[in-house]
Amino acid sequence: MEHVQHTKQPLLMLLDNFKQFFPLDTNEQNEVKRLFTQRIVKRKGFLLQEGEVCRNYYFVVSGCFKMFAIDTNFREHNLQFAAEGDWIADFQSFYNEEPSSLYIEAVEPAIVLQIQHKDLLYLYINYHKFDRNFRIIMEQKLMEYQKRILLNISTNADERYSAFQRQYPHLINRLPNNQIASYLGITSEFLSKIRKKASDIKEGFKGET
Amino acid sequence: MEHVQHTKQPLLMLLDNFKQFFPLDTNEQNEVKRLFTQRIVKRKGFLLQEGEVCRNYYFVVSGCFKMFAIDTNFREHNLQFAAEGDWIADFQSFYNEEPSSLYIEAVEPAIVLQIQHKDLLYLYINYHKFDRNFRIIMEQKLMEYQKRILLNISTNADERYSAFQRQYPHLINRLPNNQIASYLGITSEFLSKIRKKASDIKEGFKGET
Repeated sequence: MEHVQHTKQPLLMLLDNFKQFFPLDTNEQNEVKRLFTQRIVKRKGFLLQEGEVCRNYYFVVSGCFKMFAIDTNFREHNLQFAAEGDWIADFQSFYNEEPSSLYIEAVEPAIVLQIQHKDLLYLYINYHKFDRNFRIIMEQKLMEYQKRILLNISTNADERYSAFQRQYPHLINRLPNNQIASYLGITSEFLSKIRKKASDIKEGFKGET
Repeated sequence: MEHVQHTKQPLLMLLDNFKQFFPLDTNEQNEVKRLFTQRIVKRKGFLLQEGEVCRNYYFVVSGCFKMFAIDTNFREHNLQFAAEGDWIADFQSFYNEEPSSLYIEAVEPAIVLQIQHKDLLYLYINYHKFDRNFRIIMEQKLMEYQKRILLNISTNADERYSAFQRQYPHLINRLPNNQIASYLGITSEFLSKIRKKASDIKEGFKGET
């Protein structure tokens, strides 16, 4: 539980997250304190499993999650990672209240703050600020997804790995090879080759100076 | 111009679009009429080209657009289609006011209603309803993108084509083979084979009855 003690007070972290957009007033802050609940998740613990309805929207306080699908050959396909300060949910399942085809699993011990769909709707209906802040959160996620789709359809594996390094510098050394490979849509073996090539090039540059 | 005459009054179509979410009052409707401007686009005309900043958010009144990137081998990669009732923009470029790496081109003669970034911000700041409606528009786009990423990374070309048929029944016979192939991340030849196989199966079923 050492992990937990080192973490900044979770609710403060969430309020700071909103501060980036439009800071909440005292009343709105109290509603956040009332409606978000804390959950501690062990490594390999699930926030969501295939067939369940995704009942909550999660704000990651610490640790890291992967959201993935399992195909008919039992292979995992990583859709998204979420670490400190990120929001994660299966939107399709959350908004339509339909069974999910995805899993959300902790790849490290983690703490999240979660809000139920009905409580989020309550915030939207009663406080304009949440409509606005979540509009911006959605826009940012949309930009991330647009980038992801474009990389998937128009670049090779080396370029996708470079983009991953730029986008997730804080995750690159925290995630095992097979998780990143699954996100990039390649095999672990192929990713190892790419990483070796990238490190050889870096060493080459060092040798030249 | 026959195309234009047959179209429902564009602004009414836009107001109807908002009606699905939270209908606008008279004041809000007048702001929409004031701030959205109509644009007629010829087939193969561009709303956006690589290197330009995406200055507008577009609501498609009629016709159809593709948003795509061109790679270093001059190959097109389709990110998204948008037909009647859809919204389209390069979000990355629109929100950050940075040069786009994408093109938005009309694949049919089209009419759009466009709003500039600063005018959309004006609506957000002055009328709560737009924050709310665009939050929902963003959520829907996000679900579509999440689905798209999942299909890209976890299914084969046949499954992606079936999903495309289900998601875009109104587009399947309007788009040339090479456009759909580019969206699915496969060659036109491979798509022709898939379409032939699908049609043979359908014929087979008919023969049995």
